[in-house]
Amino acid sequence: MTYSKKPLVGIIMGSSSDSRIMKGAAEILDDFKVKHEDQIISAHRTPARLAEYAQHAEKMGFDIIIAGAGGAAHLPGMIASHTVIPVIGVPILVYNDKHHKKTDTEKFSAFGGLDSLLSITEMPSGSPVVAVGVNKAGNAGIYAMKILANKFPELKKKLKQHKSNQHESVVKESEMMKKQGLSSFAKKKFK
Amino acid sequence: MTYSKKPLVGIIMGSSSDSRIMKGAAEILDDFKVKHEDQIISAHRTPARLAEYAQHAEKMGFDIIIAGAGGAAHLPGMIASHTVIPVIGVPILVYNDKHHKKTDTEKFSAFGGLDSLLSITEMPSGSPVVAVGVNKAGNAGIYAMKILANKFPELKKKLKQHKSNQHESVVKESEMMKKQGLSSFAKKKFK
Amino acid sequence: MTYSKKPLVGIIMGSSSDSRIMKGAAEILDDFKVKHEDQIISAHRTPARLAEYAQHAEKMGFDIIIAGAGGAAHLPGMIASHTVIPVIGVPILVYNDKHHKKTDTEKFSAFGGLDSLLSITEMPSGSPVVAVGVNKAGNAGIYAMKILANKFPELKKKLKQHKSNQHESVVKESEMMKKQGLSSFAKKKFK
Amino acid sequence: MTYSKKPLVGIIMGSSSDSRIMKGAAEILDDFKVKHEDQIISAHRTPARLAEYAQHAEKMGFDIIIAGAGGAAHLPGMIASHTVIPVIGVPILVYNDKHHKKTDTEKFSAFGGLDSLLSITEMPSGSPVVAVGVNKAGNAGIYAMKILANKFPELKKKLKQHKSNQHESVVKESEMMKKQGLSSFAKKKFK
Amino acid sequence: MTYSKKPLVGIIMGSSSDSRIMKGAAEILDDFKVKHEDQIISAHRTPARLAEYAQHAEKMGFDIIIAGAGGAAHLPGMIASHTVIPVIGVPILVYNDKHHKKTDTEKFSAFGGLDSLLSITEMPSGSPVVAVGVNKAGNAGIYAMKILANKFPELKKKLKQHKSNQHESVVKESEMMKKQGLSSFAKKKFK
Amino acid sequence: MTYSKKPLVGIIMGSSSDSRIMKGAAEILDDFKVKHEDQIISAHRTPARLAEYAQHAEKMGFDIIIAGAGGAAHLPGMIASHTVIPVIGVPILVYNDKHHKKTDTEKFSAFGGLDSLLSITEMPSGSPVVAVGVNKAGNAGIYAMKILANKFPELKKKLKQHKSNQHESVVKESEMMKKQGLSSFAKKKFK
Amino acid sequence: MTYSKKPLVGIIMGSSSDSRIMKGAAEILDDFKVKHEDQIISAHRTPARLAEYAQHAEKMGFDIIIAGAGGAAHLPGMIASHTVIPVIGVPILVYNDKHHKKTDTEKFSAFGGLDSLLSITEMPSGSPVVAVGVNKAGNAGIYAMKILANKFPELKKKLKQHKSNQHESVVKESEMMKKQGLSSFAKKKFK
Amino acid sequence: MTYSKKPLVGIIMGSSSDSRIMKGAAEILDDFKVKHEDQIISAHRTPARLAEYAQHAEKMGFDIIIAGAGGAAHLPGMIASHTVIPVIGVPILVYNDKHHKKTDTEKFSAFGGLDSLLSITEMPSGSPVVAVGVNKAGNAGIYAMKILANKFPELKKKLKQHKSNQHESVVKESEMMKKQGLSSFAKKKFK
Repeated sequence: MTYSKKPLVGIIMGSSSDSRIMKGAAEILDDFKVKHEDQIISAHRTPARLAEYAQHAEKMGFDIIIAGAGGAAHLPGMIASHTVIPVIGVPILVYNDKHHKKTDTEKFSAFGGLDSLLSITEMPSGSPVVAVGVNKAGNAGIYAMKILANKFPELKKKLKQHKSNQHESVVKESEMMKKQGLSSFAKKKFK
Repeated sequence: MTYSKKPLVGIIMGSSSDSRIMKGAAEILDDFKVKHEDQIISAHRTPARLAEYAQHAEKMGFDIIIAGAGGAAHLPGMIASHTVIPVIGVPILVYNDKHHKKTDTEKFSAFGGLDSLLSITEMPSGSPVVAVGVNKAGNAGIYAMKILANKFPELKKKLKQHKSNQHESVVKESEMMKKQGLSSFAKKKFK
Repeated sequence: MTYSKKPLVGIIMGSSSDSRIMKGAAEILDDFKVKHEDQIISAHRTPARLAEYAQHAEKMGFDIIIAGAGGAAHLPGMIASHTVIPVIGVPILVYNDKHHKKTDTEKFSAFGGLDSLLSITEMPSGSPVVAVGVNKAGNAGIYAMKILANKFPELKKKLKQHKSNQHESVVKESEMMKKQGLSSFAKKKFK
Repeated sequence: MTYSKKPLVGIIMGSSSDSRIMKGAAEILDDFKVKHEDQIISAHRTPARLAEYAQHAEKMGFDIIIAGAGGAAHLPGMIASHTVIPVIGVPILVYNDKHHKKTDTEKFSAFGGLDSLLSITEMPSGSPVVAVGVNKAGNAGIYAMKILANKFPELKKKLKQHKSNQHESVVKESEMMKKQGLSSFAKKKFK
Repeated sequence: MTYSKKPLVGIIMGSSSDSRIMKGAAEILDDFKVKHEDQIISAHRTPARLAEYAQHAEKMGFDIIIAGAGGAAHLPGMIASHTVIPVIGVPILVYNDKHHKKTDTEKFSAFGGLDSLLSITEMPSGSPVVAVGVNKAGNAGIYAMKILANKFPELKKKLKQHKSNQHESVVKESEMMKKQGLSSFAKKKFK
Repeated sequence: MTYSKKPLVGIIMGSSSDSRIMKGAAEILDDFKVKHEDQIISAHRTPARLAEYAQHAEKMGFDIIIAGAGGAAHLPGMIASHTVIPVIGVPILVYNDKHHKKTDTEKFSAFGGLDSLLSITEMPSGSPVVAVGVNKAGNAGIYAMKILANKFPELKKKLKQHKSNQHESVVKESEMMKKQGLSSFAKKKFK
Repeated sequence: MTYSKKPLVGIIMGSSSDSRIMKGAAEILDDFKVKHEDQIISAHRTPARLAEYAQHAEKMGFDIIIAGAGGAAHLPGMIASHTVIPVIGVPILVYNDKHHKKTDTEKFSAFGGLDSLLSITEMPSGSPVVAVGVNKAGNAGIYAMKILANKFPELKKKLKQHKSNQHESVVKESEMMKKQGLSSFAKKKFK
Repeated sequence: MTYSKKPLVGIIMGSSSDSRIMKGAAEILDDFKVKHEDQIISAHRTPARLAEYAQHAEKMGFDIIIAGAGGAAHLPGMIASHTVIPVIGVPILVYNDKHHKKTDTEKFSAFGGLDSLLSITEMPSGSPVVAVGVNKAGNAGIYAMKILANKFPELKKKLKQHKSNQHESVVKESEMMKKQGLSSFAKKKFK
């Protein structure tokens, strides 16, 4: 990694079960070869660690903190209140329904992530947090790259490459669909 | 096809995964023997193609564009902003939950399509898009037929036939239910 | 008016109180010099007129029907079920709160137009209606012009002029804001 | 059946697929030995049958119509607009997601029945329909019995018996839970 | 009054402030010359009166109870649980915001009546209540007339007259709008 | 005050503007002659005071903390995470719209308090907070009295008196309405 | 159990099917060695038992009642109206969709628990109930412990131990994640 | 200004009427002495300017773009799709109700900003935008300062001063409330 020997981004989440979603952010950072440090900081189960972590983050010199939480998602806002490092919040869908371990198919979320999204965005004036879409940890990762790219021109180049790859890949699929027709295309894709 | 040698309708969608829903529109057009051209135009991954596609659509002489997208569904509104061809938007349910590929049963949508519906309908004054119901690509297809029927009397006839077929089919099922009684009818249908 | 001696568009609404919103559609049509016929057709208070109006509309040769309704907004869907003419639905905010006539300030809508929007869009497969945004009757008018422009090239020209006027007007305001700075601009605009 | 040789209640629904839910109403009526006639009347696919059915219902002397529909649920309100017979609306959850026939596990409803509930209740002043809860066809059946009980004292007796049976059955389960303790009770019930 | 010397309908509400909305039901009953008895029964402030009132209602021989309540609207469901008389629930918008007495303009409702609507409709299987639209007490009154009309043929006649009056009044306004054009009509109506 | 020389309840809120709502709790406690200490603790502007206040509250021996907050209402949950004292959360409607100071009539809340309600209730397993209704600070006060009444029998007596007063007051108004009839009653009340 | 020979907490729920969720409260109380009595009290199927149970609870000397219910969740509010014992409400997700017994995978809830949450919290002024999050019966249990800890110092100690255990467990997992990195951690946890 | 001679932040909005809200961002930047350039870029009325502005922003070397829009808020996402500069979206409440110019009191928003919030956050994977709370333009300004503070240590100092000022101001008000008591405090503040 050429940008820094120390991690530039701190990734935190409210619970180990959030790692299923939050690993999407880590994967982007790994792709962009940006070091990150990953921790579980529960606003509610480890409240004393909020201030601690904020100090740790400032000492580590993190440029960005990515914080994921579900339900009454206080973590992003609380960390943001303890530090001036910009925090990107990731709202996470929380399942409230008890279910049998065998099938897992009855899992259910009471509010579809709206609870988490509003708990992150609707901060009072003077205490901003920003949010990406529900469960969009990968987008938080790319947004972090955009912030870092202000400092690291090489990242800017990679982001443009990323954009251009997306463009190419969509154009290619579009050509295929145009040629095959939508019905055939869909049949092949979802057979 | 008697209406035109060139496609009369452009079908576009934001992602190849939307083809699962959007093929419903293609199937209606195929039934009505109306030619269409199908492409993937991502407002976010291929923004440069928005203006390009709008010009292409005008050059092709499309009478209607059917545009499907999910989540922050910008595609219908953005295409409509680049052209005076009427755009029919199809809101698509987006799944936000990560899941194991094997079962697919945990798929989940954060906002039930409301995000997409509002992203399509709530356009500012002066820049209209219209929307059909969530995932109702087939209805976008029929609506396109209604618009084209203003020009092609034969299509008007087919639409009336379609309406009359629907009528007949419901009346027939109703007769069956009336005779068998609701409980028996339902038991047979959902055995 | 050069397009037709007879009205090309039928505008209907569920109640005379909807005329406050629906006149937005009439104003656009008048601007574009497209004749329209305006009626009140209440799906619930004059159900017998639904079929009657549909026949009248077909006989009159309307190319489009614009139908506005609030609350349980059945009018657009019901008219669409009686005819193959394309129907553009306008969801209207309905006020449910009783209030003193003097002030009118306590007016209140129970569901912010969501009831009306979903009553219009969520039609079953095979029976499409489309909707513009809540209270956006003007957008229904412009959308009607887009449909008619397929037939009347002069309308296409006017629509392009309309787009270009919008563009100019925004660019002009933007130049003013850029020069004055946002704070000064806003202070002047909202003094 | 002692109440009447002719059916006292008309049960209608918008589609044969609604019979899965609506049979809940029929089962209650069968339990109370009240005759009913069951039909499919689609407001959108068979609009001409709305007035026809209303006349049929008045001629048959139905005391109550139970009408179930999903999505933009116009059927209850439209039938109510054609007749003075009281209509009980049953909002039905509609699934919008395409799915593979094999598993059926991806079925999904865009608005959880809120679309249907509001399309039924939010009728304009002067045109009432009433609604039971989403998918609660059985409750529509019992409510119909309550209305009929004003005429048929024997039905009043049966309703009281029904209430008393419910009471007994809950008390019995409660005694069991009190004795076994909640944890054991739940373990047995959901093993 | 020819129907009965005793009241046929009991109107109840959770609070004296609900009388502002609920008088809409009384006015309809007065128009139809149907006697009613009006009381305030608070499910939460006078829980002991629920059973009492239910017994009173049965003794009085009420054919219908109209029950209005806001917020966590338990009154309709709780009365329905104590009697077999059919209960029509009226969801009422509740204002939660403190405001200065002078202006009253800041009144605000937290959930737009959705809390009340769902608290009324979403009753468990076996315990039905029905709801009209939010604040639609007048519609509850008309629905009550529809139920009573099964017993009193004269009421059926009046209801048909009511329907026919509505029809006439809409047709008349529609003629005016058709003649004047929508813009002029709206300008006159909302000057 | 006979219960304690020290305050038994700590009332906190996120901002001085919340005092408009939160004084409802203070008024109840004053009525019941229960001492309370009132502070502003902003989870976001004074995060360091969360732990401090929790220690202070434990040292003061508060039996209950009443915590009000709006928008992304983190205060109740964060205080609850720092102490084992039971916390009663009060969701507060937050206004997001800028308005002229003169009239105050354009005040507006983006989410009707739903943001605040969910930010309080949807806490993770193991970290409970409870909520009363939106803006219902007075109910938080009474609930606090219910908890304290387990310790102070005199409070239990007062609560029963409070209940009985409510009962009497409703019965009295009900008698008035029954006698005057609903229409007259409402006209007098809302003249 | 050292606190009391009699149960200190009454757990009630509206239906035996709620025991699947409500056992979460019982498990917490069992862990804390606090005796509880468990019953099924249906507000709608056993309305007469509401007053009875309230008297029973007062006679038993319960310090707290935990009440769970779904849909139009009247139980918590109605019990609270009959007694001055503090009631903790547990909103429960209710499934409205009919499904085949074999798979259980089509279960569906119409309103995601919002109906139940609002039916519990939005009580009128003067009649408080409090709610924990949807399906969070365990949190109701812990909250009950917090209330009892005001009386039983040993419980306060256990609650602090519980908090400290939570803290330790999160810190331990966090250390693991920090060391392994998020991607590896998530892969191991969700393999 | 010591940070840069050129503007570091581009502020854009969809309409001149948004300047009422968006000036909140400009005021923060002015306070922090950070230069910004302000423009109106309408995604729908000036679609061609999206790519143009993105190029302009990159050429100008903006570190951040703050983009505000209401309704179907496409501007933030569309600009983000054209550039790798991080975009902060500000959802804006849009009023849909027509009103008399004199009073302005009937202004109304159909979806309370939810339409705009979801149109901004729910971007597809790979195309991130972030959002602050509805109408919270000031928070977007502070968040921009947090990002810039990674580059300009003096800004970090100012942000800490800002935090500390907030802290002091809350503590001071809290002391006043503690001393005066909540009721007196609120009476003085809201007299």
